[in-house]
Amino acid sequence: MTIPESHRDIVDKPSFWHVATIGPDGRPQTSPVWIGEDEDGNLCFSSRKDRQKYKNLMTNPSVALSAIDPDDPYRYLEIRGTVARIDDNPGGSYVDQMAHKYMGLETFPGHDPENDPDRVIVRITPERTTTMG
Amino acid sequence: MTIPESHRDIVDKPSFWHVATIGPDGRPQTSPVWIGEDEDGNLCFSSRKDRQKYKNLMTNPSVALSAIDPDDPYRYLEIRGTVARIDDNPGGSYVDQMAHKYMGLETFPGHDPENDPDRVIVRITPERTTTMG
Repeated sequence: MTIPESHRDIVDKPSFWHVATIGPDGRPQTSPVWIGEDEDGNLCFSSRKDRQKYKNLMTNPSVALSAIDPDDPYRYLEIRGTVARIDDNPGGSYVDQMAHKYMGLETFPGHDPENDPDRVIVRITPERTTTMG
Repeated sequence: MTIPESHRDIVDKPSFWHVATIGPDGRPQTSPVWIGEDEDGNLCFSSRKDRQKYKNLMTNPSVALSAIDPDDPYRYLEIRGTVARIDDNPGGSYVDQMAHKYMGLETFPGHDPENDPDRVIVRITPERTTTMG
């Protein structure tokens, strides 16, 4: 599946995404993430092994992501998918990569790679999309 | 449960919320909503009976909502809860009420109450919150 051309700009822009996962109690959880894309077309975000969403994804790999176009609050894109894989990213270089996309900076302010051993990159294969606007 | 004072401004402001529900296949769905609050402390949003999230909530009343502070992208609030009730709102007066909060307008531009018979107000009782920033 590919992202529809009509709304692919929302992936390319520094849009604020909210990722929904399912907890061990079967109930939804949601939190904001910065999203990148890898060479296989997976949507990627940085997380940590102590975060609830990481723990949720280890037992239930189903994900939904939605974002509003930062330039037009009446357009949005929802992407549902499944975790393709989760890579260890000790030091969190992906945090800095996203700081480049979202903030135009080389590194995320205050980010200390020396003290960030439990970082991971979550990679999501998109399966379905919903659009508005 | 009450919303923590430290982050209650995110509920009061015209913040863009994303609501996560669980579909009939047990997988998450998420989409943007405008959020109000009723006199019982429930978080409320307008929906329609033909929307996926309405259908999801009819079979699984668990909800998670998250929003970033529109004035500070490093603060967010997540609220998990359960549907308290869903009220019919034929004509969608709640859409106009939210247009007042979010746009400072009396009515939502282009909204035609005569052709909006299937509107509902979803009311969520907050049960747990997570904050950042």
